[in-house]
Amino acid sequence: MPAPEKFTSFIDENADSFIQRLKEAVAIPSVSGDPKHRPDVFKMGSWLQSQLESLGVHTKSVDLGKHIMDGQELQLPQAIFGRIGDDPKKKTILIYGHYDVQPANKSDGWDTEPFTLIVDNDTGRLIGRGSTDDKGPILGWLNVLQAHKDLGLELPVNLRFCFEGMEESGSEGLDELISSEAAKGKAGWFGGVDAVCISDNYWLNTRTPCLTYGLRGLAYFKVTVSGPARDLHSGAFGRAVHEPMTDLVILMSKLVAPDGKILVPGVDEMVSAASEEERKIYDKLDYSIKDIEESVGAPIALSSDKAAVLMGRMRYPSLSLHGIEGAFYGAGAKTVIPASVAGKFSIRLVPPQTPEAVEPLVETYLLSEFKKLNSKNKLKVENLHGGKPWVADYKHWNYQAGIKATEAVYKRTPDLTREGGSIPVTLTFAESLGVNVLLLPMGRGDDGAHSTNEKLDRSNFIEGSKLLGTYLYEVGAITA
Amino acid sequence: MPAPEKFTSFIDENADSFIQRLKEAVAIPSVSGDPKHRPDVFKMGSWLQSQLESLGVHTKSVDLGKHIMDGQELQLPQAIFGRIGDDPKKKTILIYGHYDVQPANKSDGWDTEPFTLIVDNDTGRLIGRGSTDDKGPILGWLNVLQAHKDLGLELPVNLRFCFEGMEESGSEGLDELISSEAAKGKAGWFGGVDAVCISDNYWLNTRTPCLTYGLRGLAYFKVTVSGPARDLHSGAFGRAVHEPMTDLVILMSKLVAPDGKILVPGVDEMVSAASEEERKIYDKLDYSIKDIEESVGAPIALSSDKAAVLMGRMRYPSLSLHGIEGAFYGAGAKTVIPASVAGKFSIRLVPPQTPEAVEPLVETYLLSEFKKLNSKNKLKVENLHGGKPWVADYKHWNYQAGIKATEAVYKRTPDLTREGGSIPVTLTFAESLGVNVLLLPMGRGDDGAHSTNEKLDRSNFIEGSKLLGTYLYEVGAITA
Repeated sequence: MPAPEKFTSFIDENADSFIQRLKEAVAIPSVSGDPKHRPDVFKMGSWLQSQLESLGVHTKSVDLGKHIMDGQELQLPQAIFGRIGDDPKKKTILIYGHYDVQPANKSDGWDTEPFTLIVDNDTGRLIGRGSTDDKGPILGWLNVLQAHKDLGLELPVNLRFCFEGMEESGSEGLDELISSEAAKGKAGWFGGVDAVCISDNYWLNTRTPCLTYGLRGLAYFKVTVSGPARDLHSGAFGRAVHEPMTDLVILMSKLVAPDGKILVPGVDEMVSAASEEERKIYDKLDYSIKDIEESVGAPIALSSDKAAVLMGRMRYPSLSLHGIEGAFYGAGAKTVIPASVAGKFSIRLVPPQTPEAVEPLVETYLLSEFKKLNSKNKLKVENLHGGKPWVADYKHWNYQAGIKATEAVYKRTPDLTREGGSIPVTLTFAESLGVNVLLLPMGRGDDGAHSTNEKLDRSNFIEGSKLLGTYLYEVGAITA
Repeated sequence: MPAPEKFTSFIDENADSFIQRLKEAVAIPSVSGDPKHRPDVFKMGSWLQSQLESLGVHTKSVDLGKHIMDGQELQLPQAIFGRIGDDPKKKTILIYGHYDVQPANKSDGWDTEPFTLIVDNDTGRLIGRGSTDDKGPILGWLNVLQAHKDLGLELPVNLRFCFEGMEESGSEGLDELISSEAAKGKAGWFGGVDAVCISDNYWLNTRTPCLTYGLRGLAYFKVTVSGPARDLHSGAFGRAVHEPMTDLVILMSKLVAPDGKILVPGVDEMVSAASEEERKIYDKLDYSIKDIEESVGAPIALSSDKAAVLMGRMRYPSLSLHGIEGAFYGAGAKTVIPASVAGKFSIRLVPPQTPEAVEPLVETYLLSEFKKLNSKNKLKVENLHGGKPWVADYKHWNYQAGIKATEAVYKRTPDLTREGGSIPVTLTFAESLGVNVLLLPMGRGDDGAHSTNEKLDRSNFIEGSKLLGTYLYEVGAITA
């Protein structure tokens, strides 16, 4: 049961107004990780809720309480629940997405204003923060609803929605909400859900659609070294006092080797090496060293062995140093000794690693390395957030529907991949609801989520909207 | 010949209006190191020039041409020359100061807006960027001129002024200007100058005025590691590509040890160790480990040996890591792999070190350490600016005048110190004009120049204005 032709035509015919709606969404700088943007996150949640309501979805804004960020008590952005359809003969699919985005400043190196969606007709790109992560995919679902409402078409499944505004900052409050809703069974918002679909990741390359059945987890750390009560002049105090930057940089240099090996004892060792048979899975994927070099824009792959690079991304843990808070970061030359500096780094986890197992290893190691420095400065290690890795059964009907929908829209069989990123809520849904979760990406591997000049190709937005709708019809065909 | 009593009384009686003028000066954010503040630097130069004119000083604004900063071509801030008095029977003193300031943002950790001068009556502090470095001291000279104009008093010396707006960014263009003016001899603005006085450093502690006869030089480096064409998502690319932050942090960790030892081969080795006799000079200074711990606000002195700490600051080189440009620096948790990151660090130099001798050692060392990483990323090492160290003859009449003036105003003999900071122009004046240069500080050791919450004590501003005036009378007494 492919989607009706008038559905896919409607998507094509209304592409411009769909892009206009994406422009509206991108214009709201809903950065969850920056306290000063918190009102924008709320604004984005309200905007999304009113869009859903106008498309016939019954919604509810859920208060998730307060939390502490950078020493401030802040209200958590609302979760938006939605439901449309209650036909017991139809399957019920729960859709998840997030309406918050990563930080972005033009000064980070963007070519255009990050919160103004640029439609580049030469390249076919829609450029702006959140275009692909995750506003584009959320709006893909709105496009599907719009088509059915305007065409007077009946949806092939019952839909439930769960949208959050804290995904980029650890999804605070969401796990508890999902668990408590799940515990209500039939009476809860997720009562009767047969499977979950999440569109919040990317194709492996720029050509081949994929379905994703595994994700790495995450353990995010902040390691702070504090010394003087305030920043000092390096002329007046250089070689007179213990400098926090000296200590922190040495600690950070002991976390990961240039070849990607994690130096925290016990972390890499938790994961068994791949067998020759497992290597073959990666050898078969539509991916080359040239692909990775194209998507990053430089010949810097860690290996010339394709399977090794793919396994580094999908089935091994990684440790990345993100930056330092509190040090001099501007242009030019400032001769400061920063008083307190906080290194940010994170470890991507794979089974059987968990944040709970990895965090004590990191803490113990940093404390012991700091001791060796004989510094009079103070060390503090914090876990900012974490999530377990996840792997799903790709033989489930939910995945089969995704495969058929991809074949219908893109005329090709998707790759089945595991992904390097983390969407911790995936695991929460799988565990709380006990149902299969499908990751059905909209964007391409070079979209630059979390990066400067984030984009979503126009064709991925439009064909992707068709894909999401067609997937619902393929799920519907299973009940038929 | 102490200053006339009516001069010092005038300074006391007009303290509030002098503070009001300092408030006006601090309100102009003349940050020379940030291209977007360049118009404010020009504004500050114009403000200063019109103040001088209104006080009877004949001035000239000198165009220093253009330069490149962060890839932009920018007009250099004007130098302001001034002259008042041409009596051949009087000595002629050249005054130098700078009207630009270090960067400052409230988000760096300031308790108040950095460009709003706060008069804290409880602590007696004047808080704001530039209050002590170097707007306070410049305004000290204006206060002296104001007193003489309003009281109808004749100045005891001829004065020449040279104020610049690029001191915090390497004094670009100034060396050439001073050399070419000096080459004009009697016909130039510096013709007939007998000595130079600069008020742009600090007391060693918070109690004892000092005169400074030595300064460390500076070599400031930017080491850039670049990899991908844009920032990457650490989930998608962690352990797949060479990460610039990993490489940079390892390089930075190899520059300086936690105990202050410089790890670049050959740099520490250029400087001979202190003899037992030289140690005694430092043992005698009015300074204790408690002083340094009070001025930095934490018990983090590198040693419990006072002479060792003072020598670390005054007669040994130091290397400080200032920060990283291009990495994540904000609050919260961003899972980015930054595309290009630039570490900033500087080495404070002492005789016989020079930037020219040290820079190749640093470059060679960084290139060789980078090679060991086997990284496919790219390395670039740049020298952002540099200045030689300087030592003067403190038995010269210029210093004797400074000592007598301090005794007259503060009723105590000043310490004679060498300082850890760099004012490269000091050496330029000494070498180009062939005259003695006196550093006569106004502020205290805990002022926090270049730091958050920079302040100048009200008493230092007022007594310091008296000191500058009295110094001129003591110089005048030499001709009498």
